[in-house]
Formats: sequence, C-alpha cells, structure tokens
Amino acid sequence: MLNWGRLILDGVPYADLVSARDRDPSVTWFDHWMETAANYERLGEQAQAAGHTITAGEYFVLGSLAAQYAQFLWFDDRRRVGQERKVELYRRAAPLLNPQAERFELTVDGATVPGYVRVPASGSGPYPTAVLLGGLESTKEESYQFEQQLLARGIATVTFDGPGQGEMFPEVPLRGDYERYTSAVVDYAEKLPEIDASRIGVVGRSLGGHYALRSAALDQRFVACISWGGFADMDSYDDETPMTKESWKYVTASSTHEEARERVMRLMDVRSELHKLRVPTYIQHGMHDEVPVSEVDVVKQLAVDAPLTIVIEPHGDHCCHNLGPRPRFEMIDWLEEQLKPRA
Amino acid sequence: MLNWGRLILDGVPYADLVSARDRDPSVTWFDHWMETAANYERLGEQAQAAGHTITAGEYFVLGSLAAQYAQFLWFDDRRRVGQERKVELYRRAAPLLNPQAERFELTVDGATVPGYVRVPASGSGPYPTAVLLGGLESTKEESYQFEQQLLARGIATVTFDGPGQGEMFPEVPLRGDYERYTSAVVDYAEKLPEIDASRIGVVGRSLGGHYALRSAALDQRFVACISWGGFADMDSYDDETPMTKESWKYVTASSTHEEARERVMRLMDVRSELHKLRVPTYIQHGMHDEVPVSEVDVVKQLAVDAPLTIVIEPHGDHCCHNLGPRPRFEMIDWLEEQLKPRA
Repeated sequence: MLNWGRLILDGVPYADLVSARDRDPSVTWFDHWMETAANYERLGEQAQAAGHTITAGEYFVLGSLAAQYAQFLWFDDRRRVGQERKVELYRRAAPLLNPQAERFELTVDGATVPGYVRVPASGSGPYPTAVLLGGLESTKEESYQFEQQLLARGIATVTFDGPGQGEMFPEVPLRGDYERYTSAVVDYAEKLPEIDASRIGVVGRSLGGHYALRSAALDQRFVACISWGGFADMDSYDDETPMTKESWKYVTASSTHEEARERVMRLMDVRSELHKLRVPTYIQHGMHDEVPVSEVDVVKQLAVDAPLTIVIEPHGDHCCHNLGPRPRFEMIDWLEEQLKPRA
Repeated sequence: MLNWGRLILDGVPYADLVSARDRDPSVTWFDHWMETAANYERLGEQAQAAGHTITAGEYFVLGSLAAQYAQFLWFDDRRRVGQERKVELYRRAAPLLNPQAERFELTVDGATVPGYVRVPASGSGPYPTAVLLGGLESTKEESYQFEQQLLARGIATVTFDGPGQGEMFPEVPLRGDYERYTSAVVDYAEKLPEIDASRIGVVGRSLGGHYALRSAALDQRFVACISWGGFADMDSYDDETPMTKESWKYVTASSTHEEARERVMRLMDVRSELHKLRVPTYIQHGMHDEVPVSEVDVVKQLAVDAPLTIVIEPHGDHCCHNLGPRPRFEMIDWLEEQLKPRA
C-alpha cells in the first residue's frame, strides 16, 4: 500500500523507510515515525544552536515528513497529534529554508486558511507562480521537494491547506467548493509584489488534481492547470480500497461509511463545470492507478474548450510516483512553458 | 552487495534501482544500466532542445550515474565503455548545473588530471573550498549531490580523477603517491580568484578517505581533513571480498591477484606519514563496515599531532551509507566550522 517511490521523491530518506519496515514489531508504525520525527527535531535544534541553519532546516523538514507518515492512513485519535507535529516542524523549518517559506493566514467564512509562499532566490520578480494543491492524504508541507524544482526554474510557489486538509480540517471538513479557497489564496497572492498576477498556474496532485480542474474552471485568473493523478467524479467510489474509504470518512467527518459515500459522490464532482475550463491543462495518469484511467476520458469529453495535454503512462501507478523523477520533470517543464512563454 | 542507501543518497532514483532489480533476467546488469543511461541522455537532449536547461542538466547527471553503475564492479572490456559514457554524460551536464561545473585539465608527469570546480551561486568570494576525493569504485562525477550540500552552505568544491580512477586510469593506474595529484590540484585551485587559498579542506570517501589522510599529512596547505570510511593501511587485504579484490586487481592493472595484493599492501599505507598530520581531522566509521574499525585505532595511535574528531556509528556500514543523510550533514557541518570559523 505504501508507495516508497512517492515517499522518497517527496524527501523521506530511504534509510527511514528501511528502519520503519524493520522496526521492532512491538512498536507501532505511528510511534516509530513519531520517534523519528522527534530525533530529527532534536538534530535540528542542535544544528540551529550551532549556527548550521541550512542543516537545521533540512532536519525540521525531515521531521515534518516523518510526522506526516506517522499519521498517514492512521485513524485513531493520535492522527491529530501527528498532523500537529507535522505542522509545527515545518513551521520551524520555514524561515530556514532557501528560499524561505513565508507563512500566511487568510480567513474564509470565519475559518483560517493557512499557507506558505516561496519566492525564487535568484532572478528578478515579479515571478510566474504555481499554486500547489494537496490531496486526500497530503497537505501543504509535503510539496517541499517539488517546490525546490519549481523555484530553481524561477517559478514562485504557494501552498495551503483547504477544507478537509491538515490545519484546516478541525475547522472545516471536506466540502465541494474547494475553488473558493483556491480563489481566496489567489486574491492574496496576486497582491504580493513578488508575484506576477498574470502568470499563475495551478497544480493539484491526486484529490488535488480534482480540485485543480475545479479551481481552473471556475477562476479565470489561472492561466494553466495540471491535474496530476486527478479525477472528475467519484462514480467509482465503491471500488476504492478500504483504507481510502476510511480516509474519505475521516476527512468528511462522517459518522458512517454510508454517509461518507453519499457526501463524497455528491461533492467531488466537477463534471457540470468542466465546460468552463478554458486554459491549457495537463492531465497525467498512470495505467496502473487505482483511480480509473477512464476519468481521463470524462475530462476529455467535457472540457471541450480547454487545450488538453494528456499523458498516460503505461507503467505508472497513482500519480506515477513509481516512475522516478521523469514524470515530475515533464509536468514542471510543461508548466514552465505555459507560465514563461518564449518569444 | 549493492548498497541502495549509497546509490540513492548519491542521486540514483529509487525507481531506477527497482527497475534494475526487476529487469528481464536475459538482460545483463551492464546492458540494463547502459540503456537507462541512453534514455536519460535522450531525455536530456530533448529538454535542452526545448530550452529546459535545468531539467536537461538533471537528466545528464542521472545518465552519468546510470553509466557509473553499469560498469560498477563489472570487470570485462565493457567497463571502459561505461566509464567513458559516465564521463561524457557528466561533461554534458556540467555547464547546465546550478552552479555550473567548470572543467579543468592539469598535467602531472605528462599525464592528464581532469577535474571540475564549482563555486557557490550566491554570497561573495573568495570562498572556502572542499577538495573531494573519490575512492576505489567512485570518481569525480559521483559527488554531485554532496557538492550541492556544500555549495548551499557557501563552500566551493573541487573534484578530480587521480591515479587508478575514472579518466586517469587508462594513463595511470593506482600509485602510492596520491598526495602529489591532490597537491597539483591545490596548486591550480589556489590561484583561482573565487577560491580562498587559506581555507581549503580535503574530504575523501572510502579509499579516498585514505588519500585524504595522506594528502593532508603531506601538504600543509589543507586546513581540515575528513576521512569518510577510510583507512591507514591494507593489512587486512586478505579479508576483503572477492569483488573488492577484483577491483584492486583492475585499478592496479595487475595481471594476477598475487601481484595486486603485493602492490596494494605496499602502496596503500600511510602509517609512516601520519605523524605529519597536524590539522583538525574528522574520522567517520561504521561498526558494520567491511573496512575494519581497528583502522580508526591505527590513525588514533599515529596521528598524535592532529586534533581528531572520531565518530563511530554503531549501526553504520561502509561510509555509513545505510544511515541516510544525517552522517553526511554532520561531516558537512564539521567542515563548515573548520573552514568558516565564527568570531
């Protein structure tokens, strides 16, 4: 179930995966990773005290990732503790990263939407910008490695937690109107002097790939959209794995699976809006993805006014995490072409 | 035998390791990795043609690493072909890297010593500098990821192939006097305006850790030394694995194992010089290293005038490659303290 390719590409050290797999079986998965997070926090504090700020930032990011995978698909009360640790450790990393991650907090319907902006260290702004959307089991803290790649190419990044995700979840569980949150983030970002409001794209991974389609269809300020392992609807809900159904139940704050099923199938449906999608859109899908590849056909059928680039990887699993860096480079290069057109 | 931790920390994608392991058994290890290298070269060329130079550089580095592991512990005539491909692909990457790698070629005893200098992209020079030494099965092309960490901390890097390594091997097989080559490289580097000649350290990995001790003992210009999984002598030659003995035979250009054994035991011995080591020296060793941990005692006993920092990792294997990024960060932070002393 756990995709090592995903974790490693997102920055989890291979050694940590081996150590989690080979742990003393009397230690739970949750406790093992939380201890790993605590170790990295201690190392980060030591490095920071000694003036090694770059190393400290790296350790806090590694600790944040460890806390993420402690609570990943873990559905008792400790999940909240893991989420909070992840947030806390990334928050300690943020000012130490290069370029640093600057935290912001917005308010939508009285609830706090927390996020981070990162601006390239070199070149001159205002910069083209990518708004990155997490998914069902990922939040704003996990796109650090992907951000590094964008930043190296002169593209600023914005990440945030929306309904059902990370810091927002306790206040606002899953909703259908994710685009309102993405738009609030764009309202904020486009006023920043470092950001070129005319060159903002949206990149969503997994469930975030669904949100990306919705956000780009309903907010005409986006000039490009990437749906990375996303989908248009949840008609295939009954084929989801039991663990994924647990996730849906959790993020919808449903008391029964039946309730979760009803909500997810009703709320996670962008079909009626896809005709509004007008901007260049990149769809990446793996043939071996649990998310049925027929979802690509749904987008193709309904997003008739959007120039679509469809990449179906014959050996790819969910989000093509098993294929190494190539599919990520290809998305990034495509996005760069949309946001930094050459003469 | 193959340490996935090493390969992944040095930049080989996890997906490439899985794909090599699960390859069609009728395809040799060599051919599989050379095909991987060719794929990355083609992707690099495509990215470069489309103006995605950073992506192109990354692909050429990945191709170079793939060619490295094609010929790794592979002892027929194709080894030379793998080495040449590695060199060629890294050479294509060099101008595209950020910061770029600038190639140099020196002459020692009429033979060409090839190397690369990289200077931090930010901050202002002249920069403290680390001279990085490869080992028995590693060359100047494989320290790219380690270099990135040093460069991010404002430390310039110099790598080269010495006797028995990479590009030099066809002209000059293994010799005992590696310090002459390191010194020639320092002669060159210290004249570069970007490099602070008063703040040059040497870092050697595995056999390079032996060379680092020798170089720092015999060239007083080095102000710090790291012996990363190194050793002082080869008294334990007979306990080496058969594959390592093949490597020794290859790099010494010996016709028999007996000849290789005699040369290695005679030439790879720094004991009579260790009393000349004066500079702060960091020794890292894993308790599970094939290289006996008693080698640390030899250094301790003989390098009586050097301030030693000795780190023995109880769970570490050769070069502690199995422990993830922490041991590397610790070496880098120590080196930074030696090269960038604070008031």
